[in-house]
Amino acid sequence: MKAILLAVAGFVAISAMPAAATADAIEDAIKARKSFMQVSAFNLSILGAMAKGERDYDAELARTLSKNLHALSLLNNGAMWPEGSGNDKPALTDKTRALPAIWTNYPAVAEKHKAWTDASADLAATAGDGLEVLKSKMGPVGKSCGGCHKDFRAEKK
Amino acid sequence: MKAILLAVAGFVAISAMPAAATADAIEDAIKARKSFMQVSAFNLSILGAMAKGERDYDAELARTLSKNLHALSLLNNGAMWPEGSGNDKPALTDKTRALPAIWTNYPAVAEKHKAWTDASADLAATAGDGLEVLKSKMGPVGKSCGGCHKDFRAEKK
Repeated sequence: MKAILLAVAGFVAISAMPAAATADAIEDAIKARKSFMQVSAFNLSILGAMAKGERDYDAELARTLSKNLHALSLLNNGAMWPEGSGNDKPALTDKTRALPAIWTNYPAVAEKHKAWTDASADLAATAGDGLEVLKSKMGPVGKSCGGCHKDFRAEKK
Repeated sequence: MKAILLAVAGFVAISAMPAAATADAIEDAIKARKSFMQVSAFNLSILGAMAKGERDYDAELARTLSKNLHALSLLNNGAMWPEGSGNDKPALTDKTRALPAIWTNYPAVAEKHKAWTDASADLAATAGDGLEVLKSKMGPVGKSCGGCHKDFRAEKK
């Protein structure tokens, strides 16, 4: 329940941003959310390498990184998503792949976010319990990332 | 106490990294830690703008961002700091300002980290209680960032 509230709060915060964010503020927000994705991806990629057998399974590291990932999913990053920071703005086309639909589909975005929060909670609780468990929990996490990216992120040019 | 353990664990994890991280893995780690700094700075900079009167004080936003900052301080980012990823390596001189002293001063680094964890906890607990309170709690947070950067980060060229 807490996770749902946090996830929803994150996207409600979007609408609480000043209506007229300056161009600089919007670029800062875009940089910040890309950095956030990088930090999340860093944690996930090491777990993925373990799951795929590209590096040795390490229970302690798996536990640590999956806890990081879940903690990241619980941040309220609404301020990184000000209105008017989608890729439909000509000045931003090359700077972000965020589709404008994000700002007209809060409930759907919040649901996608909740899927990540839930899947990463499950991963964080079990990733240290062995390679087979890790493998079985990674799918839902990857799927939750893809769930949002598929609907709300433009293809790479 | 939990915060201390987490902070120490973060840097102990450095030594648990594979001794011979590949060049690619080191570059990924450097990118990830820079991204992490960006995410932290994004949250801090909005709080700083409020404290300096450059934007209106917003209790809800102050609470949210300061909680984010504290949660970020509690992540265990040891994997972002593999040995051999300091700026003394010729290939990395232009990619990182992290001084090699980081890897020979774990206790000092962990203490610096703990100062950030503590100061951000104090900020997170009170940032929503008014502009004057926010102002009074920002100094220690900024000082804790600077404490580590001063000793363990090279000057900008």
